[in-house]
Amino acid sequence: MSIIEPRVLKGFRDFLPEQEILRSALIEKLTDAFKRCGFVPIDTPVLEYEEILLGKGGGETEKQVYRFTDHGGRAVAMRFDLTVPFARFMALHAHELYLPFKRYHIAKVWRGENTQRGRYREFMQCDFDMVGSDTAASDFEIVYTIYTALSNLAIPAFTINLNHRGIFNRFLASQGILDRSVEILRTVDKLEKIGRDATHEQLAELTNPALADKLLAFIELKGDNLTILSGMTQLAGGEADDTKRIRAILDLAQASGFEQSLRLNPSITRGLDYYTGVVFETFINAMPEIGSICSGGRYNDLASLYTKQHIPGVGASVGLDRLIAALEALEVKVPVSGYCQALILNLDDTLLTDYVCCAKSLRDAGIACEVYPETKKIQLQFTYAEKKAIPFAIIRGETEHEKNIWVLKNLDTRNSVDYTSLEALVQAFAQTNMQRNS
Amino acid sequence: MSIIEPRVLKGFRDFLPEQEILRSALIEKLTDAFKRCGFVPIDTPVLEYEEILLGKGGGETEKQVYRFTDHGGRAVAMRFDLTVPFARFMALHAHELYLPFKRYHIAKVWRGENTQRGRYREFMQCDFDMVGSDTAASDFEIVYTIYTALSNLAIPAFTINLNHRGIFNRFLASQGILDRSVEILRTVDKLEKIGRDATHEQLAELTNPALADKLLAFIELKGDNLTILSGMTQLAGGEADDTKRIRAILDLAQASGFEQSLRLNPSITRGLDYYTGVVFETFINAMPEIGSICSGGRYNDLASLYTKQHIPGVGASVGLDRLIAALEALEVKVPVSGYCQALILNLDDTLLTDYVCCAKSLRDAGIACEVYPETKKIQLQFTYAEKKAIPFAIIRGETEHEKNIWVLKNLDTRNSVDYTSLEALVQAFAQTNMQRNS
Repeated sequence: MSIIEPRVLKGFRDFLPEQEILRSALIEKLTDAFKRCGFVPIDTPVLEYEEILLGKGGGETEKQVYRFTDHGGRAVAMRFDLTVPFARFMALHAHELYLPFKRYHIAKVWRGENTQRGRYREFMQCDFDMVGSDTAASDFEIVYTIYTALSNLAIPAFTINLNHRGIFNRFLASQGILDRSVEILRTVDKLEKIGRDATHEQLAELTNPALADKLLAFIELKGDNLTILSGMTQLAGGEADDTKRIRAILDLAQASGFEQSLRLNPSITRGLDYYTGVVFETFINAMPEIGSICSGGRYNDLASLYTKQHIPGVGASVGLDRLIAALEALEVKVPVSGYCQALILNLDDTLLTDYVCCAKSLRDAGIACEVYPETKKIQLQFTYAEKKAIPFAIIRGETEHEKNIWVLKNLDTRNSVDYTSLEALVQAFAQTNMQRNS
Repeated sequence: MSIIEPRVLKGFRDFLPEQEILRSALIEKLTDAFKRCGFVPIDTPVLEYEEILLGKGGGETEKQVYRFTDHGGRAVAMRFDLTVPFARFMALHAHELYLPFKRYHIAKVWRGENTQRGRYREFMQCDFDMVGSDTAASDFEIVYTIYTALSNLAIPAFTINLNHRGIFNRFLASQGILDRSVEILRTVDKLEKIGRDATHEQLAELTNPALADKLLAFIELKGDNLTILSGMTQLAGGEADDTKRIRAILDLAQASGFEQSLRLNPSITRGLDYYTGVVFETFINAMPEIGSICSGGRYNDLASLYTKQHIPGVGASVGLDRLIAALEALEVKVPVSGYCQALILNLDDTLLTDYVCCAKSLRDAGIACEVYPETKKIQLQFTYAEKKAIPFAIIRGETEHEKNIWVLKNLDTRNSVDYTSLEALVQAFAQTNMQRNS
């Protein structure tokens, strides 16, 4: 029989145990932070009616969406983000839900992107949003959740960059160029990427050189957060709801003691049209070049395509792939727990009952372990433990059985200790394990 | 602007928080059991080349698979189970992996099934397999993992039904009807569903009435496990590897103390062709009618479509949707933890800093909580807590602020206790919480 070549589609990936263990550990820690901040999980289908997902139509995204006709002749598509399904979800279930509604959703999305830029066509999104309230308290809740979620990972210092679209728009209005705000925002958004000179040039094309100077002066305001806020307030024509909102968020951050991780940054705009209030981007201090690992902002009306109910909201999304790349580059070791701690060597077929009882005792005590299933050469069994990164071996052959002992061998140090009962072994193991995890 | 009707595709479902919290809790408990038994997670893409997923071709499955042509003109399909992708995975990564390899994979699959039978087109599979070893130890490991995983859920008594295809085949050979084994196995598999008389009739059609009597005598053997094993051994023509394998598994189950949950059942065959050794089905004792909640068996060669390497294995799959339906019907309350424990009422805009500091203190102590984001009527805030099933409210208005106290109100009992500091509140809360979870 001929063999079908085993392969995966371009832009798609298998996750081997080492990678999947890391990804699961990160998701677990993010979930823990979301829960602690009062968010609840939801799930939506991977496939939706095409008209629902592409409602807004046009643009880059539409070309990238995986879509087809299903068995029933329906035009369907695979979700390309978690925001559009969330909007549809809110419109469909508004009567069953309570507002404000705080949800998180960690799931895969698909985009047929050009993989040459190192992008994947299947990737995981981690979104959290709070909808139904347009207040400083809810803006702050998202900022605080970003802080909690990223602190919960073992990543080094990071900075949440905060801005408000409204202040910038007031400034544009005062200069008589509000009509070009979308183009100006998109240009400013590229500042880091294309550099100051190219940004100035493009802004001058959109306006004129003098205005380009002024625009750059605004987005390049320097100093501590309150100094920058003063500068922005002045350039925008005075205090208003937008500057008050930022001031309230900065106050709450100070009261919560993480103001050092929050930076008011007038150059952060987020290219996307739908943000209407605060916007955030988060950078790892030692590695700004990988881009924002958690971004978001406030939007005025989440579900207007599907309902007449007005649902304002604020949210953000963690870039899991970027985060994993950063942790690797920074050589940060993410603690993982609960995977196989001991391999019970299989040295004698007639002792299988002993091995199985040992596994049961350890597992009942919450210690992950396994019995090697065949009486292969001991060196092969040690190699197996090494490949699977199992830190301990438990040894009981004919000799140990006669002496009625269990040998616990640390596979790092090669030290062995004898135990005269399973109870003693389990107890010793539980203590060792506690030390290792503490 | 016209509104797009918010709806989901037939056979697809949204999971609202209550449902998703339950599903997450079950997945967490299954994962915990899989890890404890030494399994590691993997992940594979949702989309694969069509030829990989449909390699075997033909049959019911092929008609149900979601498939289409992607942007690059490739014939692709959405996975319809986790076994075929696992086979492809093993063939592709054999050189990077170690054998025996124990993996679990909990993920969605898609089948365009007829939804009139109450089936879903998108559902979650929870597979665990051990490949690379054909031994009693590995068969037993899967049986023990089924036992551990289901014991870890709060479900009532269940029975793992065990059988061996080899014994039945030897019996068929002794009667000269091995050539009809596939049809006979499929008929026997329907015994529970169609009843004894219809089964006899169909078996008689496949063979003759006398042989149908004998077949039913075999599959209806009664008694304790060892008595049934004796009967099967006798009818199959004596002891062989297959009966020895079953005896070894029964011995190990007895040594591990869960033999009361394991039943040798000659009528369990699993309709699927690819099982070659032991097979399992698991029923909730109080609810056999919902069908098996965890099934599987041994297969001879996992990845033969994609590689010449011979990879035997044994595995099983938990039916999560059935499990959820059973838990609901049995009114079993699955413990969930870590979701919002306290709502900090928002009674005065000027006290927002206090509320935020209170949330920070509780969250730092690992207690999930949130601040209501607006100073709405207190009754509305209580309703929110009730709808979100938040058990406690924390109250601090102008009066409490002047007295410098925090009031913790139990929303079930309506009892309130005053605390003179945040530290005291957090400490009291942590203790209450511990009691509630113990």
